[in-house]
Amino acid sequence: MSKLLKRTHMCGVLTKENIGETVTLNGWVAKQRSLGSLIFADLRDKTGITQIVFDDTIPEETFQLAESLRSEYVIGVSGTVRERSSKNPDLPTGDIEVLATDLVLYSAAETPPIYIKDDDNVDMNLRLKYRYLDLRKLKMQRNLTFRHNVCKLARDYFDQQGFTEVETPMLVRSTPEGARDYLVPSRVNKGHFYALPQSPQLFKQLLMVGGTDRYFQIVKCFRDEDLRADRQPEFTQMDLEMSFVDQDDVIAIQEGFLQKLFREMMGVEISLPLPRIRYDEAMERYGSDKPDTRFGFELKCLNDTEAVKATEFKVFRDALDQGGDVRGICIDGGSPEFSRKNIDKLTEETKAYGARGVVWIRVEEDGFKSSVNKFFTQEEFAEIVSVFDAKPKDLILIVADQPKVVFDSLGFLRRRIAGILGLLDNTKFNLLWVVDFPMFEKNEEGEITAMHHPFTHPKEEDIPLLDTDPLAVKADAYDIVLNGVEMGGGSVRIHDRALQQKMFDILGISKEESQRKFGFLLEAFKYGTPPHAGLAYGLDRMIMLLTGEESIREVMAFPKNQNAQCLVSDAPNTVDDAQLEELGITVIE
Amino acid sequence: MSKLLKRTHMCGVLTKENIGETVTLNGWVAKQRSLGSLIFADLRDKTGITQIVFDDTIPEETFQLAESLRSEYVIGVSGTVRERSSKNPDLPTGDIEVLATDLVLYSAAETPPIYIKDDDNVDMNLRLKYRYLDLRKLKMQRNLTFRHNVCKLARDYFDQQGFTEVETPMLVRSTPEGARDYLVPSRVNKGHFYALPQSPQLFKQLLMVGGTDRYFQIVKCFRDEDLRADRQPEFTQMDLEMSFVDQDDVIAIQEGFLQKLFREMMGVEISLPLPRIRYDEAMERYGSDKPDTRFGFELKCLNDTEAVKATEFKVFRDALDQGGDVRGICIDGGSPEFSRKNIDKLTEETKAYGARGVVWIRVEEDGFKSSVNKFFTQEEFAEIVSVFDAKPKDLILIVADQPKVVFDSLGFLRRRIAGILGLLDNTKFNLLWVVDFPMFEKNEEGEITAMHHPFTHPKEEDIPLLDTDPLAVKADAYDIVLNGVEMGGGSVRIHDRALQQKMFDILGISKEESQRKFGFLLEAFKYGTPPHAGLAYGLDRMIMLLTGEESIREVMAFPKNQNAQCLVSDAPNTVDDAQLEELGITVIE
Repeated sequence: MSKLLKRTHMCGVLTKENIGETVTLNGWVAKQRSLGSLIFADLRDKTGITQIVFDDTIPEETFQLAESLRSEYVIGVSGTVRERSSKNPDLPTGDIEVLATDLVLYSAAETPPIYIKDDDNVDMNLRLKYRYLDLRKLKMQRNLTFRHNVCKLARDYFDQQGFTEVETPMLVRSTPEGARDYLVPSRVNKGHFYALPQSPQLFKQLLMVGGTDRYFQIVKCFRDEDLRADRQPEFTQMDLEMSFVDQDDVIAIQEGFLQKLFREMMGVEISLPLPRIRYDEAMERYGSDKPDTRFGFELKCLNDTEAVKATEFKVFRDALDQGGDVRGICIDGGSPEFSRKNIDKLTEETKAYGARGVVWIRVEEDGFKSSVNKFFTQEEFAEIVSVFDAKPKDLILIVADQPKVVFDSLGFLRRRIAGILGLLDNTKFNLLWVVDFPMFEKNEEGEITAMHHPFTHPKEEDIPLLDTDPLAVKADAYDIVLNGVEMGGGSVRIHDRALQQKMFDILGISKEESQRKFGFLLEAFKYGTPPHAGLAYGLDRMIMLLTGEESIREVMAFPKNQNAQCLVSDAPNTVDDAQLEELGITVIE
Repeated sequence: MSKLLKRTHMCGVLTKENIGETVTLNGWVAKQRSLGSLIFADLRDKTGITQIVFDDTIPEETFQLAESLRSEYVIGVSGTVRERSSKNPDLPTGDIEVLATDLVLYSAAETPPIYIKDDDNVDMNLRLKYRYLDLRKLKMQRNLTFRHNVCKLARDYFDQQGFTEVETPMLVRSTPEGARDYLVPSRVNKGHFYALPQSPQLFKQLLMVGGTDRYFQIVKCFRDEDLRADRQPEFTQMDLEMSFVDQDDVIAIQEGFLQKLFREMMGVEISLPLPRIRYDEAMERYGSDKPDTRFGFELKCLNDTEAVKATEFKVFRDALDQGGDVRGICIDGGSPEFSRKNIDKLTEETKAYGARGVVWIRVEEDGFKSSVNKFFTQEEFAEIVSVFDAKPKDLILIVADQPKVVFDSLGFLRRRIAGILGLLDNTKFNLLWVVDFPMFEKNEEGEITAMHHPFTHPKEEDIPLLDTDPLAVKADAYDIVLNGVEMGGGSVRIHDRALQQKMFDILGISKEESQRKFGFLLEAFKYGTPPHAGLAYGLDRMIMLLTGEESIREVMAFPKNQNAQCLVSDAPNTVDDAQLEELGITVIE
């Protein structure tokens, strides 16, 4: 092995302050070029780039070695820091260069199949296959460092707040809730399987029962589900649970964390307390339980206007008659921005949310134009438009359908349009809590299910409604939303056994089923369960939002592709028959 | 839900300084008793116990509630701190008690099946099944808190040293090295499997190739092997890797960590640098590659004594003639401590290490007694004994066999005897590095295998021996040993492709096999690999050693039993046929 030149500095740090110093740098050759009798090499490590100069003051042998350097060769170089004649203002080290006195080649490199530069337009699959090259990009290393710093900040904060970081098991019981479990066949107990945990939920509650008081963990969770959107089979949660607290206590502690996070990692002052909006209001105003409040276009309901109440326009009439709604949004100054074609395109996109159409009204100086001119008089349009306080040049978009379709569609439309109009200001960080979620909802089969999970505590004042009107019961559940993305959420848990049993009864979970799925938790609850509550953040998503990235893949070291494959290591792979025999399983041909 | 009394203090903190204050505590009733018109309750949380007193100054209703309290009921209590008349010097809070003014019952509790006290003698399986009760013991919570603090200290230290904490994947490629892999069937790629990682070795090297420079992670690792001794299917490593460093750099940084660890967590000053002992010397002197240096009884070789060289005593003769050794240890003052029966028992125990017998020599004032009186004269015994500088009352134990059997047997004997004689001083923390491990060893089939792994860098000066005498080649590998237990280890890695290929050739790993097992790492090494080296600590073992526990089970929240079962959640379990069908696998009946 060639000798090792021990580094004195990283490649991104030298400035004019260092002129005259003797330094040693190690790194990768980003670029090498000859200029007359000089050789220049850009030397890169995760912190940045320093220009190295080789001239005739070095031994011939060393100069020839410098001549042989190519991209991604790994070298060590010692030399003197001097001022550059032609400075590079785009580089933090751009005022200086290192005049080399010694050069060691640690490793040559074949021509890399991808460029090591931040904004290359390379196919994701290629980036994933050559992830160890992709990670050399300064942006990727900055993201990893940022993530490290966020985790450190979180750990420091929660440690000061009395949280204990505790590891929960990875080989757990399969309880298919939510997504599918990843299974792990047991060799010692053939025919039996572990699962990988979808979250540490049950174990963190056992830690509370066990007196741990305040628990924290940054932990991998696993969900075997379709990876559309931006999902990974394994993802990371920042997970917490507390004893002897209520919702306000949990929220207060999180707000302290978020304030510190934004102040130290983003240089942004968040003022506390954060806004809180009840679920019902979030749906009413924004059509979403994770509203983006960086812009307006709030939803308004038109059900009670004379124009709509009495209309014979079939779309509105049917919606109202079938227990649905007619709601709309008003885009300030939107009429000139959206042509008929644009609106048609938006309508097409909205169909993905269940809408069969979108009604538009253009507010003009001298009246109203609309896709439903035939069905409403100008006076009726005036009434509708006044609900929005609309003015000339505004554009109103209306959806009429079942409430869910209306909310989803308009919720989508307002965000989509805000995006088109450039209103998604990435220098704004609008945090808010959504609280008072419904306890229950009805699934497609019309059965009552728990909106969060069966251990969520109903709001104290709604407990009487459990017997009379369960769908009206709200939960002590809270989500933290940033710019329209759910960053985390949690709830107060039920610790009273009678109440828990009532929950199971309402959900139609038989004693047998509750025993099978949650038996051990119910057993634990017999022995003195403290009031407890908790929350979990999706860490990958949080880092993505804070770094302004588009995908969680940009903030993880080794993500998988959409087929759940690790392209860099070619996993999953076939295994030896012997391995399967030992486990007592076979693959169905 | 009953109202929540918001805590002002934990249960283990109030002292005379707090007398007169109004406080609120939450916790579990450890004990409740009536004494005349008073009720006393010991209120416990993870920090300790405070005595609560209920007298007639509280409402009747509250008093009756206090009377109804039983073990492990969860309560909140407010009151005034006052001095105790009869103090409890064994309790940190023993000078005071809280005279209750308010009491809330959060949860009743059934009689717990295990006692919540530190030194109960309960069956491990019961403790594991009721782990959420077991964790209420102050010792268990102290262990979890200690572990938390060690991890925090480590993270703070390595962060300051420029390490980035990066998460490596859990769903990886199956490459059956070392132990068996736990497999995870893929649903999206039926017939294909992921494995759970035995360690992040390959990915941390990819991070180095990717320019991450210094990597750190506290991470779960998985090995599907027999759980004899003190092993868990999932265990935790503190894992590190560094670029542009040599062995001395890695060791220096670890020593800084260990010094800080012992100073801040144990109140013990470790003086640096730590002792380093070469593998060969460790074996020669201690019979172990993880020597416990808290006591003597060093091995001595008798091969070259006249008495042994020329002996006709079959056991010694055969050993020497077959390339084995005759070695022994001398127990200072051991002769009176060990009767014939004791020695016979020790001999039986030693047979587990391959020894067929143990020869003993008692050194007496007037001569020598021995189990091989017949075969050696007193003069010959004198020669043998002088090798040990033995004196009257000393006991010499000798094993003759193949070197491995001799080392293993005597290594065992010296530790065993030290334990019997009370020499395993748990206030001593003898740390040392074992370095210069052999690069290769021969397995039972006589094949050459890598002692650590095929990526370990041979010592620079031994590289020429690779071609001529591979078994003589030493590696840049290092283990950190504490009191005879290997706490961690690592090596400098090979980054030169030609050298790596030579390694594979020596190990008889064909190109096909190396591609199949390590293909992606070899591919990565083509593109500019920095010199790199790393290390991993067994975190569970480290915490166990530092807390003085006997088993890693005492320092993990939810360990499994020896059948790899999670008794608290009853895992692994059978799963629905539907789940298996989705994965395209079946269980062999």
